[in-house]
Amino acid sequence: MAPSRTIWFDAEQLRAAVDMGTVVDRVREALIGLHRGEFEIPLRFAPGEGNFLVMPVRHIASETLAVKSLSANFTGRRPALSGTLTWEEWHTERHVGADAAEATAMRTGAVSGVAADLLAAPDADALTVIGAGGQAPDQIRAVLAVRAVSSVTVASLTRESAEACIARVAGEFPDVRFTASDDPRAAVAGADIICCVTPSTGELFSLGDLKPGAHVNLIGSYRPEMREMSGSDVARTVLFVDDVEAVTAEAGEIIEAVENGELDPGELRTLGSALATGDVSHDPERITVFKSVGVAVQDWAVMRALVDTVDIDGSD
Amino acid sequence: MAPSRTIWFDAEQLRAAVDMGTVVDRVREALIGLHRGEFEIPLRFAPGEGNFLVMPVRHIASETLAVKSLSANFTGRRPALSGTLTWEEWHTERHVGADAAEATAMRTGAVSGVAADLLAAPDADALTVIGAGGQAPDQIRAVLAVRAVSSVTVASLTRESAEACIARVAGEFPDVRFTASDDPRAAVAGADIICCVTPSTGELFSLGDLKPGAHVNLIGSYRPEMREMSGSDVARTVLFVDDVEAVTAEAGEIIEAVENGELDPGELRTLGSALATGDVSHDPERITVFKSVGVAVQDWAVMRALVDTVDIDGSD
Repeated sequence: MAPSRTIWFDAEQLRAAVDMGTVVDRVREALIGLHRGEFEIPLRFAPGEGNFLVMPVRHIASETLAVKSLSANFTGRRPALSGTLTWEEWHTERHVGADAAEATAMRTGAVSGVAADLLAAPDADALTVIGAGGQAPDQIRAVLAVRAVSSVTVASLTRESAEACIARVAGEFPDVRFTASDDPRAAVAGADIICCVTPSTGELFSLGDLKPGAHVNLIGSYRPEMREMSGSDVARTVLFVDDVEAVTAEAGEIIEAVENGELDPGELRTLGSALATGDVSHDPERITVFKSVGVAVQDWAVMRALVDTVDIDGSD
Repeated sequence: MAPSRTIWFDAEQLRAAVDMGTVVDRVREALIGLHRGEFEIPLRFAPGEGNFLVMPVRHIASETLAVKSLSANFTGRRPALSGTLTWEEWHTERHVGADAAEATAMRTGAVSGVAADLLAAPDADALTVIGAGGQAPDQIRAVLAVRAVSSVTVASLTRESAEACIARVAGEFPDVRFTASDDPRAAVAGADIICCVTPSTGELFSLGDLKPGAHVNLIGSYRPEMREMSGSDVARTVLFVDDVEAVTAEAGEIIEAVENGELDPGELRTLGSALATGDVSHDPERITVFKSVGVAVQDWAVMRALVDTVDIDGSD
């Protein structure tokens, strides 16, 4: 029996192997593919009543499978979500694995880049990220991969945590001006693009705080009680979501707007359909919002980007 | 966010890290645990109508999860089954991965060792393995881990393939006499322990060919049309199986015996229950048979053995 060949990438190796611009491209293609029915996504397993999550996704045409296996421990363990992301190919005996926490941060950033690329003004110059946790640096990297932004503001509960976040990424972007803030409302005032990556249960700002035509990515909420904008505000924007079923079940902003009768879930548009059809025309003065809770095809897309860097003979 | 820590073991590294005796011990414990309800085993996923298999198993008390993800390609790709086996822990951010084909060979051998240890004569001296494919070497290693066998016969369709199999393992056991055979009936005549690892669809030998009190492991069949002994013969032995539901659905010997009314599936005993209760008393002149199609806890057990070799700080 010839040995099968698996190549493993830890967090640092994964980061070094793929650049964010490529991940953004692969996530964009995957969202279009999702819209077109090109993936088989079985139900996720949640062994131990959610202490673990197993999320497989198969790309039908290429006969490839990505499986993310996480342990989910919110009792103080860091990171709370961590695990492995593996890649199997039906046509070959090649297998690839990667650190799931790092891959998740990259794909969660990348989808914000995809949305910003489609929906933000072409000349967007100022980015504000609210939240300075583990997901924040890749939000910055992804938006900067699609827009020539010259200034980035990071707003957090304290200026210190915002500065710590900036310290992690500023060196990668020497031409960008970074500013730390502890005032989200002030921080969004002049922004062309806003990315929210917080566990907030109340709105971080109001529509009136935003510049006309600004684009907002809402990444943080994944439970009914969580929200980064009010449901009423979200319902008044040009809104796109990653997955209709998931956001209506999990995202506090969407659930609130639907419950208040301000949003018809049947009219929710996915980013994938907008990408596939190009149907994104809207008043350039209106606010656009992309709400994401994360879909498994994003994980597949990170592995797709990674595998493309690996020779079939097993060397990288 | 602190990076999570994953340690990856390719086939050679996995082999070097754990010895077969330890895997036999861990598989024995896992079968007892399976009998006692200590595992949560969700349904397996078979994306692509079986082109891929995803098999998670959770050990409840330790809050650990093993997930085997395979691509299954029987069009000539070698190996036909290959993939990754990952390990997640709820209490820590440690993660471990290993080559699935190698782990599968080890656990498939180990369960034969567990059965031989429980059921074969304490002074068993002669082992015969029928089948010289990828699973054969670990059958030899596992039985030799539990019995001081002095002679091993490998029988295959040709003497050449049997000799090639012997060449792969003989160096590990300098005190054992190895013999190649192309005649399965002759090869089982003097054997105390017989392991069958073939894709056979017809019986390889009859009960009358066996030495009184011999122990037989039937590992090969996993489809109704496959069988290594006749159903009638199996029904006349002291029979143990790994999983009642699985063998009555998948194992040709069992299906045939049940269909012929020679075996009552309600009376099938699992190896796990025999191990847990110690209830294995039988006439020492009777033939014992263990029929296995493989259970997911065996994969968990290999990873358990592997993880025990890894320091919590990530070095091995």
